[in-house]
Amino acid sequence: MTLYLEDFTVSQRFELGEITVSEAEIIAFARQFDPQPFHIDPSAAAQSPFGGVVASGWHTAALCMRLLVDGLVGRTATLGSPGIDTLRWLRPLRPGDTLHLRAVVSGVRPSESKPDRGVLTLHMEAYNQHSEVVISMEGVNFVRRAQAAP
Amino acid sequence: MTLYLEDFTVSQRFELGEITVSEAEIIAFARQFDPQPFHIDPSAAAQSPFGGVVASGWHTAALCMRLLVDGLVGRTATLGSPGIDTLRWLRPLRPGDTLHLRAVVSGVRPSESKPDRGVLTLHMEAYNQHSEVVISMEGVNFVRRAQAAP
Repeated sequence: MTLYLEDFTVSQRFELGEITVSEAEIIAFARQFDPQPFHIDPSAAAQSPFGGVVASGWHTAALCMRLLVDGLVGRTATLGSPGIDTLRWLRPLRPGDTLHLRAVVSGVRPSESKPDRGVLTLHMEAYNQHSEVVISMEGVNFVRRAQAAP
Repeated sequence: MTLYLEDFTVSQRFELGEITVSEAEIIAFARQFDPQPFHIDPSAAAQSPFGGVVASGWHTAALCMRLLVDGLVGRTATLGSPGIDTLRWLRPLRPGDTLHLRAVVSGVRPSESKPDRGVLTLHMEAYNQHSEVVISMEGVNFVRRAQAAP
C-alpha cells in the first residue's frame, strides 16, 4: 500500500532496519569518493586520531538512504527531496559495525502553491550495535497527497 | 605544502576542478544506496517528473566530496568533519553532466577548548556545464593550527 502525505503524523516513528558494513566496502567507497588516508589506508588510519579505518561520512549517509528507501520511501508517493538540514557525524562508523536507522516525523505540511503535494520532514538517527548515535539529520521530502486540496 | 587553519581567510575562494558522471555510474551508485525508480530505471525515469534518469542526491554530494578532497582537503591538515548544514539539491544531475565545485571560506575560528585546532567553514556550490547550481551546502571541518595557541 502506497503511503501519501495524509498517512503521516508528527511524532510517528519508523524503525527502518539495519545494515552491516565491511572494511572492503568502506575502502571501496572512499577510494571512489573520499580518498583520505583514514578512510582508505589501514596503516595510516591506525596512526590517525581515529585509530583505524573509519567510513567516509558520505558512505554513512548513503547507507542510511538505503535503509530509508527499503523501509519507507520505497512505499511512499515521493517526488524527490529538496535537501537535508543539520547533518551531524557524531561517531565514526567502523568495519563490521551494524547501522540501524530510526526516522521520526517532525513535520507534515501541505504545499501552499501545489495542491497535489506537501512537505514531509523526517528527523533521522542511525545507531551502531552499541546503541550509540553515529549520524543524525533532518530530511525534507516532497510527498503526493492522496486527494488534491480543493 | 600543507595548509593549516592560519592559511584560510573568510571570503577566500577555491575553484575545485570538475568531474563528469555517466548513466552507468548513476545507476550503479543508486542500485547500491538509493534504488528509487527515477535513479535506476530509464523507462520508469522517463515517466517520472524528472523526465529521465537523475543521480541520487547522495551521489551528487559524494562527487563533490571527491572534488573537495582532490583539490583542497587532501593538502589540508584536517581532523575530520562534524557535519554539514543546509544541504540543497537545486537541480538534477543527469547522465553526461559535468559538475564543477566552488568553495568559499565562510568561517575560520580557533577552538576554545583545544589549542591545536580550529573550525573551518566552507560554503560549497557545484555547477553543471550550463553554469546552473546543482547542489549547495555548508561544510564544517576541524583543521590543525600551524602553531598551537599559548
